[in-house]
Amino acid sequence: MVEGVHFELRWGPPEVWGARSLLVNLSDIAAMGGTPTACVVNLAVRDGLGTRTLERIYAGLREIARAAGVDIVGGNITNAKQLSITIAMLGEARGAAMRRDSARIGDQIFVTGTLGDATLGWRLLAGKLRARGKSRAYLIDRFRRPPLRVAAGKRLSALRPTPAAIDISDGLLQDLGHILERSRVGAELDATRIPVSAAYRAIMRDDLSYALGGGEDYELLFCAGPGYSEAELARRLKVPVRRIGRIVRGRRLKIVGADAPKISGWDQLRARDLNS
Amino acid sequence: MVEGVHFELRWGPPEVWGARSLLVNLSDIAAMGGTPTACVVNLAVRDGLGTRTLERIYAGLREIARAAGVDIVGGNITNAKQLSITIAMLGEARGAAMRRDSARIGDQIFVTGTLGDATLGWRLLAGKLRARGKSRAYLIDRFRRPPLRVAAGKRLSALRPTPAAIDISDGLLQDLGHILERSRVGAELDATRIPVSAAYRAIMRDDLSYALGGGEDYELLFCAGPGYSEAELARRLKVPVRRIGRIVRGRRLKIVGADAPKISGWDQLRARDLNS
Repeated sequence: MVEGVHFELRWGPPEVWGARSLLVNLSDIAAMGGTPTACVVNLAVRDGLGTRTLERIYAGLREIARAAGVDIVGGNITNAKQLSITIAMLGEARGAAMRRDSARIGDQIFVTGTLGDATLGWRLLAGKLRARGKSRAYLIDRFRRPPLRVAAGKRLSALRPTPAAIDISDGLLQDLGHILERSRVGAELDATRIPVSAAYRAIMRDDLSYALGGGEDYELLFCAGPGYSEAELARRLKVPVRRIGRIVRGRRLKIVGADAPKISGWDQLRARDLNS
Repeated sequence: MVEGVHFELRWGPPEVWGARSLLVNLSDIAAMGGTPTACVVNLAVRDGLGTRTLERIYAGLREIARAAGVDIVGGNITNAKQLSITIAMLGEARGAAMRRDSARIGDQIFVTGTLGDATLGWRLLAGKLRARGKSRAYLIDRFRRPPLRVAAGKRLSALRPTPAAIDISDGLLQDLGHILERSRVGAELDATRIPVSAAYRAIMRDDLSYALGGGEDYELLFCAGPGYSEAELARRLKVPVRRIGRIVRGRRLKIVGADAPKISGWDQLRARDLNS
């Protein structure tokens, strides 16, 4: 996580960036249904950062490490032109780890939480978008504090057959694309079912661009057999779950149920050929 | 390993920096007597770096990974203002890992190889020092390609009692200082026995500043019982070994056997109080 690329230090208290760097790494473990165990932290610091700032970054790291049961077992500090936090996270997956290559034709596609909020939060912080009040605070918080889905991921990995899963870091379409490529299948997404927050809806109306293409949400995307319902999965995982489509034969990702003009780049997205 | 801080890309072919970043990390495993198993690599790339350069950096990484039996199991690429390579290395130590806190009064202090070469190589590359011919090439190579001491470290860890050990990354005095602090002992170093190369001697004469204080050598520093001789250790470890001093009561690091003016900062070094 690099200052000036992924965040600006002035966008929040230093604790936030320490916490976020760990949450982002925990998301990868969650997506495999793993138990995080230990991590090492490399902090690159630039001139002009006080000791107090570094201590507060570490305090944020430690808070999340404690919450997730992770030991910070080592690390390194170096100088650089930009502040950056690099974490290598270890975890264990007992039994069947969730993978990207096991989506089956007929599976339903689900996501946890809501999508697109983090991108809007980032755009608000970067001054690319304006909003006030509760929506602004909510969206910024969604960027600054990704959800901790480790417990949900472990519960998810207990389903049989083991779901294919990934965390949404690059955006729904791109991360679903990874599953489709690795599983050699296609997908049909129902745009009317993509979960967005009230704050997203208030700003974007029915434009789903960021919900489909924006990254940084760190929600779970998974493919489970046709027998599972939203309600049962939400009860099992203890997080909101939405069914958004299904795995189909072929190698294409098709989006149905939305008016073409409402999604930027629709022509590219509509029937994106994963081999191209 | 950060461009502009630890190295400049123009100081050698790209393969060198990939290889070096892994060697530096393997050195920590070697100093514990461990077996390296797997690593993850984070590459921060800046504008102006071609794909070919990145491929060559990775080729250097892979060459050393193969030589050391390490799997590169994952990683990440991000943008930044500076090129940097961050590696988290995993290893296993079966039986007794070597530690920093186990030096005993009466132990002899040994180092592998020669000291100070890497700092001179760095100074040559940085234009802070001039030299020609074989000495120049030798010293630069010593900076660019740290020794792989994993096999020696494993053999060393088989001695009984298990030696205290550390790798020399920050410089002999500083790294020995870590052992003394953690083991709550003092040391007496014999400056006349510090191993330096012919190239070092040719440039520095009898000035031991860089051999004592320069870093980046990645040789092993260890404390073994009074019964071991240089010859026996060199035969066992299959690398050159020099006895340079002994562990004593107290908390001070004392250097004997050199003329005071020949070591820069001698007053500070002579009887450095580790508690201050």
